[in-house]
Amino acid sequence: MINREWHLLSRPVGWPKPEDFALVESPVPTPGEGQVLVRNKYLSVDPYMRGRMSAAKSYAAPFELGKVMQGGAVGEVIESKAEGIEPGDHVLHFFGWREYAAVDAKNAVKVGTGAEGVPLSAYLGVLGMTGLTAYAGLLRTASFKEGDSLFVSGAAGAVGSQVGQIAKLKGASRVIGSAGSDEKVRLLVDEYGFDAAFNYKNGPVAEQLRQAAPDGIDVYFDNVGGDHLEAAIGSLNQGGRVAVCGMISVYNNTEPAPGPRNLARLIQTRGRIEGFLVGDHYDLQPQFVQEVGPWVASGALKYRETVVEGIENNLEAFLGVLRGDNIGKMVVKL
Amino acid sequence: MINREWHLLSRPVGWPKPEDFALVESPVPTPGEGQVLVRNKYLSVDPYMRGRMSAAKSYAAPFELGKVMQGGAVGEVIESKAEGIEPGDHVLHFFGWREYAAVDAKNAVKVGTGAEGVPLSAYLGVLGMTGLTAYAGLLRTASFKEGDSLFVSGAAGAVGSQVGQIAKLKGASRVIGSAGSDEKVRLLVDEYGFDAAFNYKNGPVAEQLRQAAPDGIDVYFDNVGGDHLEAAIGSLNQGGRVAVCGMISVYNNTEPAPGPRNLARLIQTRGRIEGFLVGDHYDLQPQFVQEVGPWVASGALKYRETVVEGIENNLEAFLGVLRGDNIGKMVVKL
Repeated sequence: MINREWHLLSRPVGWPKPEDFALVESPVPTPGEGQVLVRNKYLSVDPYMRGRMSAAKSYAAPFELGKVMQGGAVGEVIESKAEGIEPGDHVLHFFGWREYAAVDAKNAVKVGTGAEGVPLSAYLGVLGMTGLTAYAGLLRTASFKEGDSLFVSGAAGAVGSQVGQIAKLKGASRVIGSAGSDEKVRLLVDEYGFDAAFNYKNGPVAEQLRQAAPDGIDVYFDNVGGDHLEAAIGSLNQGGRVAVCGMISVYNNTEPAPGPRNLARLIQTRGRIEGFLVGDHYDLQPQFVQEVGPWVASGALKYRETVVEGIENNLEAFLGVLRGDNIGKMVVKL
Repeated sequence: MINREWHLLSRPVGWPKPEDFALVESPVPTPGEGQVLVRNKYLSVDPYMRGRMSAAKSYAAPFELGKVMQGGAVGEVIESKAEGIEPGDHVLHFFGWREYAAVDAKNAVKVGTGAEGVPLSAYLGVLGMTGLTAYAGLLRTASFKEGDSLFVSGAAGAVGSQVGQIAKLKGASRVIGSAGSDEKVRLLVDEYGFDAAFNYKNGPVAEQLRQAAPDGIDVYFDNVGGDHLEAAIGSLNQGGRVAVCGMISVYNNTEPAPGPRNLARLIQTRGRIEGFLVGDHYDLQPQFVQEVGPWVASGALKYRETVVEGIENNLEAFLGVLRGDNIGKMVVKL
């Protein structure tokens, strides 16, 4: 049996290029004591992975050059040297970007097999880290409460679409989203139930936001940074909160871009901007599953996936996320 | 008796010019029922007043054109038509920029006469709104706690010098300040007990801060904005907090200046930037006086005043605060 895995060969400068990576063949690993051998079925691709491709110290260690990259994955256990996990079980773990992985049992979480009507890939998205990111950032970092008006950027993305829907389900007075195509904007309003949405490519963000939120916003969930953040600060109501989940607009800059010009507005509004990482909020996972799980099961909370097939398309899928090609969570099916 | 008072004639564009203002003579007002007539002894001049000279809606209403401006003042009651306040009492109120004021008793707070060794002017500064600004911003907005390292800009100013000293007295691991002259820098270290200080005009703020705080900072108290804020974000430790009290560097800009280029660092540090206004924190006043009063009385907390004499120099004193001419709280003595 042959294992294929994606290596990082050189650290991208600006936009990642195909020659920075290689799909390499290697032997299927042999699980050690306490490990399980997993045949991956779905691999996650996420914007944060761009950060780990750089050498700079970030919240996660940089990927090592000449070695296989990492990321979320779900797969089937085909061999077990650990108690409590049997061949045939499905597990969630962090050894993506490859076909086979030997995983310490303590780093593998058993998940449903998809038999209950929840597809396996959902554990990489709506019921996984993506969903918890939306939930924790909205409720804990941004202190969202019933009656707040909310703006979320990257709203058609995996995190953004959940942020807006969870806010609606929890009593937001108004939910506004921005996205990068008219198709996505329609999706936000027609399928996800946003009160308003706009295509940020159609005009200045600040102006479009003012029209969509004439009474201002109480919470901004930032996936984008740049113009979006400046516009949100400009529309922030008194006591407004900004949760910074990501700043996809700046990740590939080789020169740092100027920040918002209106930060002094934080004084008069008593506004707050705060960054967060989902890893600090795993304690919310039980509460999250308890509250959001039924919404997913009942269809009250909708989600989409963009599925790309084949390990050989893993890199292209990742680049697609950076470009915004995906609608909802992007996964690679093996 | 003639009253002299400063009027705003036109809204300054950029740096305020003398012709935007006029010192006008008017009759001494007659106190109505429930009012007291106060002969002002000290007038406060503060950077925030620049905001009220503009038409834009801010946290305080704009000054009206052709009318007398406002600001903190302490003076002696020379006539009373209110119960509980007698001629000879000294009161703190908000009708500065003039020699005489008729003040509703409910808007006047009785203060010591200076007989206990605390000069009357202190009620405009170290024991007044200035001191509470430092205290509330540091403890409540920035959640300062024992062991934190602190950076404060405008550190030789009225608020900044108190921020640094209160942090030291409450167990900061390291207190760093920036100021605009070598003389002020010496004052910070030699008199106020800062662990390190630098002159921001002597080199890039980010570099000087990194040298002064090689282990980073947990709290930044921002009086300045601009380069200082970007430098602070760059040196922010995990879980760091920024309290935005003022952004004096941007108040006179006619074009908005670009903001910090490194806001994405808030994600990895889980950093927080939050604006505040002292008016939201008057509930802390008793706790503040109880804790800081004894430090002032014992000399553990030092302060300086820059005193300018004469109502005719009130405008120049205000411009001096914007230029940074003052060391400590700037007041006008009548």
